[in-house]
This record gives sequence, C-alpha cells and structure tokens, in this order.
Amino acid sequence: MRYWWVNQNQTYDHEVVGGFLWSPKTRRDGGRNQFYENMREVRPRDVVFSFCDTHIKAVGVARGTAQTAVKPAFGAAGASWSDEGWLVPVEFGEVERPVRPKDHIERLRPLLPEKYSPLQEDGNGLQSVYLAAVPEPLALALIDLMGNSYRAVWSEFASVENEEADDQHLQATTERTDIGPVEKRQLVRARRGQGAFRKNLQIYEHSCRLTMVSDTSHLRASHIKPWRDSDDTEKLDGCNGLLPSPHVDHLFDRGYISFSDEGDVLVSSSLPRTILDAWGLPSVRNVGPFNERQRQYLEHHRSQVFRNQ
Amino acid sequence: MRYWWVNQNQTYDHEVVGGFLWSPKTRRDGGRNQFYENMREVRPRDVVFSFCDTHIKAVGVARGTAQTAVKPAFGAAGASWSDEGWLVPVEFGEVERPVRPKDHIERLRPLLPEKYSPLQEDGNGLQSVYLAAVPEPLALALIDLMGNSYRAVWSEFASVENEEADDQHLQATTERTDIGPVEKRQLVRARRGQGAFRKNLQIYEHSCRLTMVSDTSHLRASHIKPWRDSDDTEKLDGCNGLLPSPHVDHLFDRGYISFSDEGDVLVSSSLPRTILDAWGLPSVRNVGPFNERQRQYLEHHRSQVFRNQ
Repeated sequence: MRYWWVNQNQTYDHEVVGGFLWSPKTRRDGGRNQFYENMREVRPRDVVFSFCDTHIKAVGVARGTAQTAVKPAFGAAGASWSDEGWLVPVEFGEVERPVRPKDHIERLRPLLPEKYSPLQEDGNGLQSVYLAAVPEPLALALIDLMGNSYRAVWSEFASVENEEADDQHLQATTERTDIGPVEKRQLVRARRGQGAFRKNLQIYEHSCRLTMVSDTSHLRASHIKPWRDSDDTEKLDGCNGLLPSPHVDHLFDRGYISFSDEGDVLVSSSLPRTILDAWGLPSVRNVGPFNERQRQYLEHHRSQVFRNQ
Repeated sequence: MRYWWVNQNQTYDHEVVGGFLWSPKTRRDGGRNQFYENMREVRPRDVVFSFCDTHIKAVGVARGTAQTAVKPAFGAAGASWSDEGWLVPVEFGEVERPVRPKDHIERLRPLLPEKYSPLQEDGNGLQSVYLAAVPEPLALALIDLMGNSYRAVWSEFASVENEEADDQHLQATTERTDIGPVEKRQLVRARRGQGAFRKNLQIYEHSCRLTMVSDTSHLRASHIKPWRDSDDTEKLDGCNGLLPSPHVDHLFDRGYISFSDEGDVLVSSSLPRTILDAWGLPSVRNVGPFNERQRQYLEHHRSQVFRNQ
C-alpha cells in the first residue's frame, strides 16, 4: 500500500464529492509531468491525502487504477487543461478537523522527500504539484496529527469495503458449479438472513438480546462470523447468528460492540457513550451466556470484527 | 396473479426452508397428473398456500417459473418419485397462527372448485393432490381467516422484493450508456448514501430527527422517495433524504412511520407500540417542520410507502 498527496484547490469540490482524481496526461506543451505520471502508479487501497486551502481536508482510498477519461466539467478551473486525461476512482471522506501541515512543519520537515516533495521546506504548498508520493514516515506523521478524524473516515471506508466484498462474494457464489441450485439458493438467502439460516438460527435465538424485542419482522438474522468469511456450513449454521434490532445489528456488525462467552456486553472505546444513551440502549451488562458453538463464532467476532483498540 | 394450494406433508421442511416446490413430471406409470402439470402454470408473484398436518402453516410467493431439476434429497419421503421433475422457486414465510380449514368448512365449502379441489367436502385433505389452483374467492376467504398472520408474512416479502428491485435497478444503472462514468458513479453511490447525495443531504439535515444523534458514522443517508423510484435528479437531491439512526431508518424505509409536512410523527397501526418502547424511542410527537422540497418527497412517502391501513 502506498500513500499519495493531491493538491485539489480548484477541483476539490468536484473530485472529493465525485469520488475521483483527474489529471491531464501531459503538460500543455506535450511534455512529461511526474505529478501526472503518478496517476498510473496508484493501486486500489492506496491512501490519498487531499490538500486544499493549506489544509488536509479529506482522506481517500483508491478504488481502482487510472483509466483514460475526458475532462470532467470543472468549469473555469480546468480551462487550461487538455480534454483527455487520467481518472482514478477514489472514495473520499472529509476529516472533521482539517490539519494544517505548516503548523507542524518542524516535525514534518525531516520527513519530506528530497525529490517531488508535496510541500516546501517552510511548509507552504507547491502550485506545480498535482499528485505526489508520500513516504511512509511522513504519512504516519500526518495520520497521527489527524488522530480520531482519520480513524472516523477510515471506519466508513471499512464498511463500504465490507459491503463490496459481500457483493463480490455473492456474485462468485451464484457462479459456482460445484453445488446444486438448491444449495446455492440457501447460501445466497443466508446473506439476507433468510431460508435455512434463519430457520436454524431461530432454534437458538428468539429475541434481540439487548432490547428484548421478539417480533422477528423487526429483527435482523445476522451472522456472528460475517457471511463473506464463513464457509458453506458456517453460512447456514444456526449457532452462527443473532437476532439483533437494526441499531444493535449496526453496532455489532461494525464491531462497536461484542460479547464475552458468558454474555457480558463489550463496548468499544471508539463508540461514544452518548450513542448508547441516545438510542436508549439500557446499561445492560450481561445478555445471558452463549452455547459452545456460538462461542466459537464469538471468538472470531471478538478478534476480527470488534474494534478493540 | 393466481393462487395455489400445495400439499407438503412429507416435504414441508425441505420445501418451505429450501424455498421451492418440487414435483415429478409424471406419475410413476408415465401418465399425466394435473397436479404436476400445474407446476408449469405458476408465474412469478403467484401466491402459494402450504398445507401440512391439516393446517395452512405457511404462505409463499413464487419467484420464478418451473425449471427441470433433479429430485432434492427428500430422504424416504420421495423414494417413489422419479429423479427428474419440476422445481419452482418460492419464498415461504411461516404463519404465526396456522389455520385449520376443516374448522371453517361451512364457510369454505361453497367456494371449493368442482374439479381438482384441494379439499374434500368434509374439510379433509386429499392425498392425491400436490399443487392445486385456488379460485380467488376461496383464496380471499383463507387470507381473511389468517388475518394478521398473513399480513406479517406478506410484509416480509415486500421488503425482499424491494431489495431485489434495488439490485436490478442498480444493475441497469451500471449498464446505462446515456450518461458518463462520473454521473453513473454518483447515481450508484447515492444508493449507499454516499458521494454527492450525502453531501447535498447534509446541507439540510444534520442529525437523526428522532434520537438527536449527530455523529454521521452512526446514521444512514436515506432517501425519502426510495432510490429505485427516483429519477436521476431526485436520486442526488439533498432534499430527498434524512439522516436516521439504523432502527429509525428501518421503520421509515418499511413504512412503519412517516412524517407530516409540519414534522408530526405518523405511526402505522401495523407497528406494535411495544417496539417503540423497547427501542427507547421517546414519545416524540414532532420533529420540526420540513422545507418545501422535502415536503414533496414526504408526500410520496406517505402515499406510497407508509402503511396507512
């Protein structure tokens, strides 16, 4: 994974909201420009720091590689650029408290690269830069300065990535030829919490353990070990599930809460207590013990999904 | 839309959980059987009453038409049937309080068809029947007897259908050639509540109007007029959205709650009050007024999504 810095002053709104980077392929005179060439070096999952108005205002994660694309409707901002360029899809999230690198230049200066640096030695930006590589030590220092703002954006990316991984896994499942149509249908329906999985699950679970709602039309049939990570047997195993209310499902699915084997509620330090209060989630400390097989799946949830930092 | 009756005594568990009907194509002697021929008459969205142990225990909705399929692993139950047959995918839901037609035979008898009736005149079942057509007056009488049990199952189907309609609409959007890749990406991202739609939405809405949570990583960016029903402009319109908490989103998205133009909370009579209590949703009566453009979308929600029965 690599880190990149993009100067987006005039195109910030277009690119951050639109979810992409765009640059011409060459200078106006047809000459080579390293900051445009870098577009072709970006790989999916690379991290992009978006610099605008002297602040890092957004962080992005690349969702693909460069493709040829006509210039988006930038208006006056892009008048001098050629019509054809590189487009890289990037998912951006705006940080809550933008960081101004110049305010921390003493710390950052020793980490700036000698060539193609995104910043001047005095901490001012460089008009000539579009996309610049960020050495890892510099990237880690910037992330440290962004603190919780960075983590908040990142956790949103993680949810999107999980949904996309689900979609891909679903597609792959529908294309399998090693199982029959009935088995295939069961695995697919398990993803939506239906069919055999739901039936098997309701042998063990009868209500939302936190809110005590038992009307299943208001509960999710949700995997403890995520569907995409489960093998065929685990996908349909009634012990690999809970029946949470939608907001409890959100917290459990994204790792803000988990449970001990004995049923103690574990709350991640990344979840503000105000959320639990606002949602009227009672200060339940224990939801009752889990059986042996449920515990095996919970072990996976605690180690792989729970945000235990 | 047609109504069907299926006798599933020995294969009930397999078929209801598995989500399908299966019958041989012919009798053992190769002869024609109307109850097997009926399999080829089933159309998507047809309704299926599942009869087992003298009760209607489940209701299903057909998801496709008959396809040739090998006999599922019914065990001893299916030993006498040929290996090849018809399979119809059907989404089943078990009703909370099964209805015993024999208990209501005085009411039902005049409605039984003369030929290929699913029931005898005395209300007993018929071993020879597999799939029988149900005349509409008989179907409506059965639905009336099932009452809320039937509606509960049906509302689950509606959610699944909406999700599938979303998936199909998404697929169609990615295949459009009348718009560029950037516009296409915006429409697709709007479905997940991301990109331009989210940004536009956050101009007008800043928190969950019912729980007052404002940390957007715990809120959904949710369309008022459903994404699949919105045109390109409406999909990205910031006034066509709210920022509900996940459980509020569930209630709003499925039409259990809505809002008046002035912000009065409308609660569907099909939502048990116990759910609101269990979820600690305060007895908020008003969430503040909506602007003119929001009101246009809310009008659609109240008339098309809200369960105002």
